[in-house]
Parts: sequence; C-alpha cells; structure tokens
Amino acid sequence: MRILAENLIDHLDKTVNIEGWLHKKRLLGGLTFINLRDRSGLVQVLVESKKEVEKLRGLQIGTVLSITGKVIKDDRAPGGIEVHDANIDVLMAVEDVPPIEIDKPLDHKSENLDTLFENRVIGLRNIQESAIFKIRSDINRFIREFLWDQDFIEIQTPKLLAEATEGGAEVFKLDYFGQEATLAQSPQFYKQMMVGVFERVFEIAPAFRAEPSATTRHVSEVTMLDIEMGFIKNHDDVLNLVQDMLYEVVTKIQQKYSKTFKSMNIQPTIITKEFPRFKVAEIHRLFTEATGKDTTNEKDLMPEEEKWICDYAKNKYGSEAVFATSFPASAMKFYHAIDPEDPDTVLWADLLFRGLEIATCPVRENHYEKLLLQMKKAGLNTDHPGYKYYLQAFKYGLPMHGGCGFGIDRLVQKLMSLNNIREAILFPRDINRLTP
Amino acid sequence: MRILAENLIDHLDKTVNIEGWLHKKRLLGGLTFINLRDRSGLVQVLVESKKEVEKLRGLQIGTVLSITGKVIKDDRAPGGIEVHDANIDVLMAVEDVPPIEIDKPLDHKSENLDTLFENRVIGLRNIQESAIFKIRSDINRFIREFLWDQDFIEIQTPKLLAEATEGGAEVFKLDYFGQEATLAQSPQFYKQMMVGVFERVFEIAPAFRAEPSATTRHVSEVTMLDIEMGFIKNHDDVLNLVQDMLYEVVTKIQQKYSKTFKSMNIQPTIITKEFPRFKVAEIHRLFTEATGKDTTNEKDLMPEEEKWICDYAKNKYGSEAVFATSFPASAMKFYHAIDPEDPDTVLWADLLFRGLEIATCPVRENHYEKLLLQMKKAGLNTDHPGYKYYLQAFKYGLPMHGGCGFGIDRLVQKLMSLNNIREAILFPRDINRLTP
Repeated sequence: MRILAENLIDHLDKTVNIEGWLHKKRLLGGLTFINLRDRSGLVQVLVESKKEVEKLRGLQIGTVLSITGKVIKDDRAPGGIEVHDANIDVLMAVEDVPPIEIDKPLDHKSENLDTLFENRVIGLRNIQESAIFKIRSDINRFIREFLWDQDFIEIQTPKLLAEATEGGAEVFKLDYFGQEATLAQSPQFYKQMMVGVFERVFEIAPAFRAEPSATTRHVSEVTMLDIEMGFIKNHDDVLNLVQDMLYEVVTKIQQKYSKTFKSMNIQPTIITKEFPRFKVAEIHRLFTEATGKDTTNEKDLMPEEEKWICDYAKNKYGSEAVFATSFPASAMKFYHAIDPEDPDTVLWADLLFRGLEIATCPVRENHYEKLLLQMKKAGLNTDHPGYKYYLQAFKYGLPMHGGCGFGIDRLVQKLMSLNNIREAILFPRDINRLTP
Repeated sequence: MRILAENLIDHLDKTVNIEGWLHKKRLLGGLTFINLRDRSGLVQVLVESKKEVEKLRGLQIGTVLSITGKVIKDDRAPGGIEVHDANIDVLMAVEDVPPIEIDKPLDHKSENLDTLFENRVIGLRNIQESAIFKIRSDINRFIREFLWDQDFIEIQTPKLLAEATEGGAEVFKLDYFGQEATLAQSPQFYKQMMVGVFERVFEIAPAFRAEPSATTRHVSEVTMLDIEMGFIKNHDDVLNLVQDMLYEVVTKIQQKYSKTFKSMNIQPTIITKEFPRFKVAEIHRLFTEATGKDTTNEKDLMPEEEKWICDYAKNKYGSEAVFATSFPASAMKFYHAIDPEDPDTVLWADLLFRGLEIATCPVRENHYEKLLLQMKKAGLNTDHPGYKYYLQAFKYGLPMHGGCGFGIDRLVQKLMSLNNIREAILFPRDINRLTP
C-alpha cells in the first residue's frame, strides 16, 4: 500500500511504498539524494545501491516513480524523515528537461507574471505555488461549512442571460442560437428572487466582466461568493454574518496552514471577532486629518483610503478587516435600501481586508413600489423585459433582505499576501490572456 | 426570537414569534386558518380574534407576516402542530393576486413545462418544487464531503477559453476584446493537467453546450461534477470511487428526505454497495436475446438499452445503478486508454442510473508518445495551440489517472423521478429559453 509523504512519520523503521514525481536530484558528500513529491508534500530519499543510482542517471525531473524503502528518523532531513535503501521503479518516464525549475520559489515580480502564467501547468508543481490553491480549496470549503451551519442552501444560477440590464459596456455578448445572450456579471437578481423561496441562499461560481483595464485587481473571469439572507432586522444582521464567516475562515486557514505560512514568509492576518465599523464620511475625515489630502467631497472611498483605514484599524484595534458603512445615497444603485434614519446614506457597507475591498454588503430595497420609484429615479425603464422576473419576486412578497458579493480571488490574494489578483487564480483571464 | 416552523414542536404551549409568507387562507367550520410558509416548511395558524380575522381580509398570498401565538399540539393539523391566539403583523404587503396557485403540486406535464418555467420565480415557492432544490443543494454538499474525505481538492478552472479543439459545432463563441473565445464545454483538459499538481481534483461548475436539440435530456447550460484521480492501479479504482460516492449520496439523501419522498410520491432508488458491471458487448447480447432487436453491431449503447439494462439489474441484482464497461475502441476519444488486455476495447465505462447515462468514467492515456499517436490517428493536429499546455502536462510526467464527468442535473432528475432534465434546474437554458 502506498504511503503519503506526510504520513511516513507513522511508519518509522518500516519498509514502505511511496509514489510521486522526481522533484530534485542531488549529490551530497558522495551520496545520492532525491526528493520525491506527492500530493501531501516532499520526502527525501537516500539512494544507496549502485544499481539504483545507475537507474537514476538520465531520469528527468517530473519522472513518475514508485519507490520502496525504509523509513528512517533523521533530523537533518526536511520533515525529520528520510527513506533509505531505496528501490526505484519508473512508472512514467520523462524524456525532456522541464521548461522551468520547480524546486525553488517561482518569480512573482510583476514584470515576470507573464512567464509565470505561460508555464503555469508545470509551475504549479512547485510546492509553494500549489499551496496557494490547496488553501483556496479550503477557503471555499470553510465558507460552505459555515453557511450550511447557518441553514443556507447553495443555488446554481444560470450564467447565460438574455440582454443585460445594467453596465452594458462591461458585459460579454455571444450568439445564442441566433439571438444575443450575455454572460452573467453576478447572480444578484437570482439570489434576491430566491430569498422568496429559500430565505437564505448562497452561490460560489464564476462571474464574467469584460474589464478592459489591466490593473492588479481586475480580471475578466472571477469567482464570486454571493450570499443573500431574508428576514433580517437591520444592516448589522448582514454585517455580523459576513464578519463571523470571515473570522472563522481566516482563523481556520491560519491554524491549519501555520507551517505553510511560515515557510512562505507570509505574515498571518491580524483579525478580531468584531471588525471595526466606520462610516464613509468618518473615513474621509480621518484620512484627511491624517494625510492632509482632502477627500471629504468624494462619494466613494479612494483606493488609498481603503489601504489607510485598514492600517489605521490594524494599529488601533488589532484588525486588518474593516467595514466601511453608510455610503452616500448619491453613489447608490437602484436596488440599495436608503437608511431611514439618515436618508442621505444607504444601508451599504464595503468589507475592506488588508487594504482592499473584498466584499460589498448592502441591504436591498424590498418594497415593490419603492423599488419601482428608485429604478425610475435612476433613469431605468421598469418595463424592460430584463427586469420582469426580478420585479415579480417583489410584487408577490419579499421580506427585508441583504447579503454580499464577495470576491474569492481577492480574499485568497490578500490572505496569501499576493500582489496581483492573477496569482490567486489557477488560470487567470484578462484582456491579454486567454490561455493556458 | 423567531422560531422556524420545523422547530415549533420544541416550544409546545409557549407563545412564540414566527415569520414567513402567507401561503394559504381558508375558512373551516366558521374558523379562519392560515398556512404560514418559512424556509423550513409550513405551519397552520388559527386566527381567532375578530380584529385579527379582519386584518387578514384582503391580504394576498405572498404577504410577509410576523405572527405571535401559542404553540398547540393538534394531531389534526399537518405536522401535528398548530399556532393559536394569533397576533398578526404585516411585514410586507402584497397588492396583487399571484399569477399561479402555489399551495398544490405544480403541473409538470411536458406540454406545460413552458408555463412552469415562465412562472418559475413564484412557482418555486411551492413546497414540493423548492424541495427539489434543497435536495439538489444537499446532493452537491454530500458529494463534496465525500471527496474531501478522500483527499480531493476543489479546483476552479476557467470557463472562457481560446479556440475550441474538438466538437466545434456545439461550442458557444464570443468576442473577447477583439479575439474569438469559446465557453468551456468541460474542464477535462484542466483537471487532467492538475493531476500533475494535486493528484486528486474535482470541480462542480457550469458547462456550456450549444445543443441545437430540444430533447428531455439536453440543455445548453449544465452543472457538471468533474473528478480526476492520479496514481490509480486500474480502471476499478475509478469505478469504485464513483460507485462509493453515488451510494453514499443516494443513501444519505433518501434517509434525510424520506418524508419528502413519501409526500411527493417518489419511489426511492434501489441501490447496492456494489453496482453490477456489464461489458457493452454483453449488454448488446442480453438486450438482443431479450427483445429480439439486434444491437450487437452498435458501438455505443442505444437509449433503449440503457433503460433496459437498468431494469434488468434492478430485478436481478437489486440495483438501479449499473456500469457499462469496455466500450469498443472504435468509439473511443483520443484521450482514452486502450485496454491492454483487450485492445479492441477502451478503459471507459458509463454509469447508468435509473435508465439514463449520468456519468462517463474513463481511464486516460497518460503516456505522452502514445497520446500523440492516438491524436494523430484521430486526425488531430498535435501542433494546434489549443493542445499546447495540455500536452505539456504529459510530456513532463503524469501518472496513470482516470475520473469522471458526472451530470449533476441528470442525477437530480433521476433521483427525484423527474421526466425532463429542465425540471431539475432552477432556471434552465435551452434553444428556446434564455429567461427568467
């Protein structure tokens, strides 16, 4: 039976079978060592017999091997374990030298990202590179487990839509059996409609944005976590949900992967159970006071302010997660709910995480007539067929509800201290890249 | 604090708050009853005081209510519970009569499916309709939990691809910043490439097929479960994984939702821990013997044979899940592995479930040179840029691997005894339908 690298410690002094990829070969004081990589990590193997050393000659990195050998405790070896008396079988030979070296950290400098992605298929075989995506998988897992515990069900909404109703410029269009279809930028209408059915819904799925810009925070295919929750009493119900979820996910990830974070020199996120909450106007005021740059007339937060307030909250409250609340009504979208206690602002908060907005968390206007008014005020045609089904849900009764659109890629990026959102995506898509 | 309908039983003789939608109103022997719907189900409420009865007058179905009342055990009521002395607050009024009645089973006859989907947003508020999608959510959950336990990680692969390499006819094309892109029909190339990184990967995600046909089993946007597993020893390793997964999911669902299945008159699936396995040639032989229709010269299975063999296995072995194995090499795709012990057949099996193929479970050819030969034999241009990254993974070492493409929609359809795949999808997409 095959034993994984991470489980060898349980088989000390036993002869076992291990399988994986030839990750590294080296001569050390006349001895031949190889590193074998499997899904759990690396193990160092000492190859002693002449015959076996001979077999290794000419084998390229990436060769798939099956090895039997004895598990020895050796504190000098990485992981404290070594396999001795190795007998090697080649399961799949490799003839060519791989295009990149994968046994040392890959270059993530912005000017070299193109090379990184061009060699993605092989580059991901680097241990630190694949760690990003193991962690990404667990982030999605812990999010789902949190939401299931809170009685949310996962929905799967269509990505092929009829004509776009808003933001037409950034929508991908395609020919759908002779008519025009668009790719979903967000499942927002659907999740709101489904509040009327399931009360609490979420979806983790791709969303498509024809972003013509090539910034570090935009790609054309993102993974979004969309949550919507009915029968809330106030905006805090939404913020508390998102806060508790992020706190749990970050804590679990940093616990499970503490060694990985250390080996990758990643500073763990500093987070508290309660995230500081600042009104947008207050952030403008604090930022203006601190920097001398007057932002008090801005509607939205400037990227610089997002960074600044996260630093401020980290230093003052020990939290790199912050809610910016009470966005001005002048910046609102038609489906946002105006704050009844302060009608110049909307019940809309952004979740800022380590300097970046990673989620938008509004309460929706759930009153049919008010929603129609807000649409008209926004210059929208309420008779547009794209609104027909959406408006039905309100017409026939929706409770107060709110939720969030939460960028999974951005969360991975920030948690893993990556500079560019692309580094957090297996195969990123942008204006210049559609492969691999 | 709000109590859900399903939890009222724990609050007998207490006065509680319940919230939900007005689902039904009726007069019974001079008494006014309403059914309130929340995410957990229905509860019957007796409205006694004149003032409250008066309040109810004119309230439309769908009105969002908050009710306080006393929880009474009453075996005559559905669920054995009734709320008495109701005090009613309207949280959100509804002015119009909903377009369809949702307190009785909706019409799923094939000629009325268009009406069903046209009214989907409101129709899903029917308890039996929403049950399909609660179960669907749990099917996805149980699949993920099974695969996590087996050390699989979930990957998220791009849906926007460069030019299509196979099956060009059924691919959606779109303009991507001036170049042509296609929508992914399957993540197959990506999951195979990721075997070289993570060994065991899966993805549950949308896939897009420009299916011009309007059958009961084809839609243009499907949800696929894709699994790929490295370091297998033989085809049975793949089949056992899929078999164990399906057995666990079906068993857990039918246990958790036994009442729902009963109330919807759905016959539970009959399933065994080991699914019967028949070679394709054997199915042709058995079918021909039993029916007199000679299919022994067919490459693939006829839909009629898929149904027949499932019935046969159900009667003979007590299993409505069957593997059809050893497909003829003449029907193979270039990435399938030929059976070394019977080179006229491929290590490819279909999982048939209640008469329908719901998954394809092949072993892949993992030898680089052999794969190139198979591609050339299939008339493919191995220098096509669409194969470049895929072939890299093989060139630099992939272990023996196999997996499945598993139709989530088809599984839901068959498990819930639905006639048409569309009924298993929240908002189905086909040649004639792109809304809601």
